Amino acid sequence: MAEAIRHEKTARQLRLLSDALDSGRLGPVRRLVNTLSPAEIGNLLESLPPAKRTVVWGLVDPEDDGEVLVHVGDDVRESLLAEMDPDEIVAAVEDLDIDDLADLVEDLPDTVIDEVLKSMDRENRERLEQVLSYDEDTAGRLMNPDVVTVRTDTTVDVVLRYLRLRGELPDHTDHLYVVSRRHQYLGRIALQALLTHEPGTPINQLIDDEQPALGVDESSDEVARQFSDHDWISAPIVDDNNILLGRITIDDVVDIIREQAEHQVLGAAGLDEDEDLFSPVRRAFRRRLLWLSINLGTAFLAASVVGQFEGTIEKIVALAVLMPIVAGMGGNAGTQVLALMVRGLALGQVGASNVRVLLWKELRVALMNGLSLGIVLGAIVFFWFGDGVLSLVIASALTVNLVFAATAGVLVPLTLRRMGFDPALAGGVILTTVTDVMGFLAFLGLATLVLLR
Amino acid sequence: MAEAIRHEKTARQLRLLSDALDSGRLGPVRRLVNTLSPAEIGNLLESLPPAKRTVVWGLVDPEDDGEVLVHVGDDVRESLLAEMDPDEIVAAVEDLDIDDLADLVEDLPDTVIDEVLKSMDRENRERLEQVLSYDEDTAGRLMNPDVVTVRTDTTVDVVLRYLRLRGELPDHTDHLYVVSRRHQYLGRIALQALLTHEPGTPINQLIDDEQPALGVDESSDEVARQFSDHDWISAPIVDDNNILLGRITIDDVVDIIREQAEHQVLGAAGLDEDEDLFSPVRRAFRRRLLWLSINLGTAFLAASVVGQFEGTIEKIVALAVLMPIVAGMGGNAGTQVLALMVRGLALGQVGASNVRVLLWKELRVALMNGLSLGIVLGAIVFFWFGDGVLSLVIASALTVNLVFAATAGVLVPLTLRRMGFDPALAGGVILTTVTDVMGFLAFLGLATLVLLR
Repeated sequence: MAEAIRHEKTARQLRLLSDALDSGRLGPVRRLVNTLSPAEIGNLLESLPPAKRTVVWGLVDPEDDGEVLVHVGDDVRESLLAEMDPDEIVAAVEDLDIDDLADLVEDLPDTVIDEVLKSMDRENRERLEQVLSYDEDTAGRLMNPDVVTVRTDTTVDVVLRYLRLRGELPDHTDHLYVVSRRHQYLGRIALQALLTHEPGTPINQLIDDEQPALGVDESSDEVARQFSDHDWISAPIVDDNNILLGRITIDDVVDIIREQAEHQVLGAAGLDEDEDLFSPVRRAFRRRLLWLSINLGTAFLAASVVGQFEGTIEKIVALAVLMPIVAGMGGNAGTQVLALMVRGLALGQVGASNVRVLLWKELRVALMNGLSLGIVLGAIVFFWFGDGVLSLVIASALTVNLVFAATAGVLVPLTLRRMGFDPALAGGVILTTVTDVMGFLAFLGLATLVLLR
Repeated sequence: MAEAIRHEKTARQLRLLSDALDSGRLGPVRRLVNTLSPAEIGNLLESLPPAKRTVVWGLVDPEDDGEVLVHVGDDVRESLLAEMDPDEIVAAVEDLDIDDLADLVEDLPDTVIDEVLKSMDRENRERLEQVLSYDEDTAGRLMNPDVVTVRTDTTVDVVLRYLRLRGELPDHTDHLYVVSRRHQYLGRIALQALLTHEPGTPINQLIDDEQPALGVDESSDEVARQFSDHDWISAPIVDDNNILLGRITIDDVVDIIREQAEHQVLGAAGLDEDEDLFSPVRRAFRRRLLWLSINLGTAFLAASVVGQFEGTIEKIVALAVLMPIVAGMGGNAGTQVLALMVRGLALGQVGASNVRVLLWKELRVALMNGLSLGIVLGAIVFFWFGDGVLSLVIASALTVNLVFAATAGVLVPLTLRRMGFDPALAGGVILTTVTDVMGFLAFLGLATLVLLR
């Protein structure tokens, strides 16, 4: 219900805006849009069909253009950039933080990239090039080089004076970083500590050196894990020689966590997390066709198993009626195990040390479910078709398939992971192929053996 | 790949620990465990089978017990609490922050709750009771009453002196809140501003009053959205009269976002996000049985459709071989649309204003997919069974089912939402029931009409 309330709130905004757009009165639309934060505008644009999206995008305050571009998915970003002149794009992005600019730069036309680089001063250009030199999905790509550093041989008073001279601090600064002469990371000082200690206190009494810095090559998933395990607001990033390169802030980490979640949910359905709700029909068609073609292949695999038993089905048509039940129930049970495993793998909770215990547990659960549901299924089949042997066959086949489903649910994601594939993406297709094939094979095979003797 | 690296790191820790546990040398285990943060220990405990979990839990530094309990899922928490004496529990939880204690308190035995309340001073007891008076999943339940407030009629210098006198600030304090004499929320002052302005600056020049406070009844989903839309670290919480009650910090928001994600992923498989990887077999069995029983019911519904066409199948057994393909492909295509819709609904991007455009887009995509895949499927069927009419029947049935799948993919989650149900939970079952029923009906129905004339 909580989700419903939130939904209603945003939906009401959407409806208001949509009504205003339909009536053609753009003044109220502009006013409504420009009360929103860039992230909210991005969310709004993603929820608009292409024609309305273009109109609203034209009404956004140019000052917010850059931040809005940072906050939308790749597909929508592309559609928004297509509406802009090169000059507009350069103006929009030149004031962005280095990490945001790095995130955006690959989606920009080459000519625009050149313009943007030319518009930057040398220091910022070098910083951008440095950030871009790191792989996507690493700490180096997420970091912002804009950090405030202090030295050890000073006092609170001196630092306070330095900060007043410096003026505004970068967003989300909760610590100053202490570095050596060679810019090596030594530790951090909480802003809180500066505020709560006497002016004369030597800085080296306030240094927190327990929290190590993150390596620039650390994966973004590991960065997210460290942030949420330690409740950080920001973390320093260093190279192999412990030289301080920049810092990552919690707002970027929140984005990573959201993306991981979308990746799991949409990936299981063969979709990209950057998929635009209103992507052009042709593009959506092409992307989905690939996924459905893979599924068509696996469906033929299962059908070919059924094909082996045409003779049996010809004699007992009830088998054709009942066989989808056995296959489908295996798919449902296996999907439950798979979902638990995918989460466990993502959290690093499943590995060689506990997989045997886990498999044993799931096998027992599957056996208990198979027997219980088998009795129910057998009873219904008996009342429906009046055939006791058929009842026994389907009950046994169901139990066998649930046991196979549990095994596949545990082993398929582990094997995929070991082979370097993402279990969240391919796991479901492989699992249901196993449960379809095994379901048909167990049910029709047993029936052939027992009923056609 | 990034995920794989992270996994390996945690898995290595797990393996080390598991080896040490197996060898019975508890000294190294204790040392290893107590280098971890409470969240990491929680993650570790969740990854251990019950017997090892009990051993490791006994080795955790009692000082960390409370924080660890906060960081594990409900099921695991229950298993850990079962290992503790009432005295131990009281000692573990009495130093927790009020919001964490509120989160925990309902899982504690009644006698322990009384003890905990008795061990608290009156102020904290009243605060806890206040937090507990709000509904779960609201801002009131997430907030911590521990805030630092200042008044308007003062200067930076005076505030700095006050902070030095006060000493340590609550975790994640990035703003001080400005309140009126009646404790009404007026605005906030960034710690940064205190550090970068001259001592003589009047406080009222530094107040940021643009960001409104959040209402205490706001849903936790809305809280999470506001935090990530505005990149907040903390936010003030007020009641209906704008009286400042407490604040929520980003670490709690990160937890909400993670839980939302797990809810979507596991919910789609009929699992609870608090499900323990190693939950007792009986409990796992009972929970899964319920879900599988629902699925058994819908499977019978689909089977009964097939049952209507026994006569047709008896004459053309190829239909039994091919019918799972038509049904399954509908399920796959519909699941893609459903996944997009569930995300869109969760982000508030789908509503009455754009559903028609969306449905129209998905229908066109489905039609294009149906025709393309229909041609492929028809061709394969022609080479397999050498029957041109059967080819045409299956191609048409596939197209019809994909169109129905797209319609259901858009309308089922919207209807569930409107009825107050969570589309992430029930959407998949209903969708595949529609695509199974329609797949069988379209294929077998068309075959009966055309092939048995």
